[in-house]
Amino acid sequence: MAALGRRALIVTGKSSARCGALADITSALGENGQTYAVYDGVRPDPTLACVRKGLALLKESGADFVVGIGGGSPMDAAKAIALLAAEPREDGAVFSGGYGNAALPVVCVPTTAGTGSEVTPYAILTNDAARTKTSLFSPAIFPKLAYLDGGYTEGLPPAITRNTAMDAFSHAAESMLKQSSSPASELFARESLRMLYPILSSLKTPTAGERDSLLLAASLAGMAIAQTGTTVVHGMGYFLTYDYGIPHGRANGLLLGETLRLCEEQKVAALSEICAACGAGVTEICATLSALCGEREKLPKAKLEEYAIRTMGTKNVKKCKFELHPEDALRIFLHSFGLSS
Amino acid sequence: MAALGRRALIVTGKSSARCGALADITSALGENGQTYAVYDGVRPDPTLACVRKGLALLKESGADFVVGIGGGSPMDAAKAIALLAAEPREDGAVFSGGYGNAALPVVCVPTTAGTGSEVTPYAILTNDAARTKTSLFSPAIFPKLAYLDGGYTEGLPPAITRNTAMDAFSHAAESMLKQSSSPASELFARESLRMLYPILSSLKTPTAGERDSLLLAASLAGMAIAQTGTTVVHGMGYFLTYDYGIPHGRANGLLLGETLRLCEEQKVAALSEICAACGAGVTEICATLSALCGEREKLPKAKLEEYAIRTMGTKNVKKCKFELHPEDALRIFLHSFGLSS
Repeated sequence: MAALGRRALIVTGKSSARCGALADITSALGENGQTYAVYDGVRPDPTLACVRKGLALLKESGADFVVGIGGGSPMDAAKAIALLAAEPREDGAVFSGGYGNAALPVVCVPTTAGTGSEVTPYAILTNDAARTKTSLFSPAIFPKLAYLDGGYTEGLPPAITRNTAMDAFSHAAESMLKQSSSPASELFARESLRMLYPILSSLKTPTAGERDSLLLAASLAGMAIAQTGTTVVHGMGYFLTYDYGIPHGRANGLLLGETLRLCEEQKVAALSEICAACGAGVTEICATLSALCGEREKLPKAKLEEYAIRTMGTKNVKKCKFELHPEDALRIFLHSFGLSS
Repeated sequence: MAALGRRALIVTGKSSARCGALADITSALGENGQTYAVYDGVRPDPTLACVRKGLALLKESGADFVVGIGGGSPMDAAKAIALLAAEPREDGAVFSGGYGNAALPVVCVPTTAGTGSEVTPYAILTNDAARTKTSLFSPAIFPKLAYLDGGYTEGLPPAITRNTAMDAFSHAAESMLKQSSSPASELFARESLRMLYPILSSLKTPTAGERDSLLLAASLAGMAIAQTGTTVVHGMGYFLTYDYGIPHGRANGLLLGETLRLCEEQKVAALSEICAACGAGVTEICATLSALCGEREKLPKAKLEEYAIRTMGTKNVKKCKFELHPEDALRIFLHSFGLSS
């Protein structure tokens, strides 16, 4: 990190900071003769207000680079702070895209094995105006450095381990289902699936080796979506997270199985590659995801009908290898929550 | 390419320009409303004088981005031109490193399946002062775009197909033998070896499918060395190219087998991974390389003794997973040319 600046703003959450990563980073900064300020106010699904607070502290502290420590939320907040510091925007323009190539340098230390945010050019924030989550994109927020240590994920509650692992799995699978997938993105995605699926299909308390594998697999999946973006699974899941607080990874896990079944109906070739990498058939993969999700939330059918319509307007709906009509979106939502279509 | 500038300098060689790539690029530029100048004076193992000529034409023409079309030589010349345009240096300082992060945007179109230069931050030039070839490095010369079309390699003479394929194979294997190899670089390297070896071990006239595979495998190997750099195989080979004009890929192919044997003696773990990816043992791989190299050049033993000493001062000697002493370097040189040690 020595080359990145004189003073860091460390962006983290109250619990993410406790796993040892914060101590390791502050000690490394100290050895480099770099100073820092800590903003540990990031909560899950960060809002623009949360990012604004971080920006204020950044200016106040004179930091010239940003270190995100945590799951997707602190890392995405860190990336958004780094971006908006270089390209200030009014609240109403933050989600309108078209960012240039300027941002403060970002370092990421993931403390969950899921998001892959440590290797992507995206920062996903709660977008109150659109009542969903929306990604900011700029090549400048590709982290300059990412430190991966499976040990940081050791104290995670089992539900977070499960949800974040489903997030990573969904990234890898979704990346394979984008028209923009390439030999390089597919290489990352297949390797990620190959590493993830056996752990996922028998996920209890991961061993240290499995934690390292989960973290690496999550990063590989991140490298894949960094190239391709995600599919409508993410677009649909953001509604569930915004309205019902369903954790992001769980939302993907809930919706992915039915999406894979849709691909099976449409005989999407990439689905066979996903299955081959997992060493499992579609039915088996769906059963694994279903078991990981456990009992479903009880959501009103009217809400799911509303989401199915709104799904068609999300940017993730575009350029998938499968076709999605409003009735498909509705069926995915209903079946994912155990309702009949 | 539309986003990269108004006017391109196309850097190519007399023969590289003939495969169709030049026509495709100029037509694409035309459709974008971009103009261009062509510098087709690059010859194998480009010199600084060659780069200076290109730089002069760049300034004269007012080009604001550079397109390299060809094998490693035109692409490396293009990258060096793009770098020196942004950071001018006196001849004596060109090879002294420490380049910043500024260069004109570079597009690369490989017309051989070997160098991987289209996906690396290196430009390798003839360094007359050091009587070898030396690489310039800057993250800014990572090509913004690379177009891969196996069809461009169709008219290559068999010797060039062989030599460039050995170059790619050597990149992938060498990358696995660097201490800086990582899960991501190893993923690229293993996939490259997996694709390359079966084609290499029975290389006659490649089919269209094999040409595409060779080109992609060469790029994957390039992505691997972009992360790790090359080993002493390259450091040693540059002497052979500088003094005897032995083509770069052939030089690597000549020296790689004996280097793998050294790794076998030292029980280097990465060697097993190389063999596993190839689906072949060390002896078989060495035999394949030997057959591809065919008859050896007759080089004076005294020259090889000189190279063995100079090898120890090359930057590629550092941070390999195997140890190399001067007597090892000498043995590799001697055995590679059918001489006894």
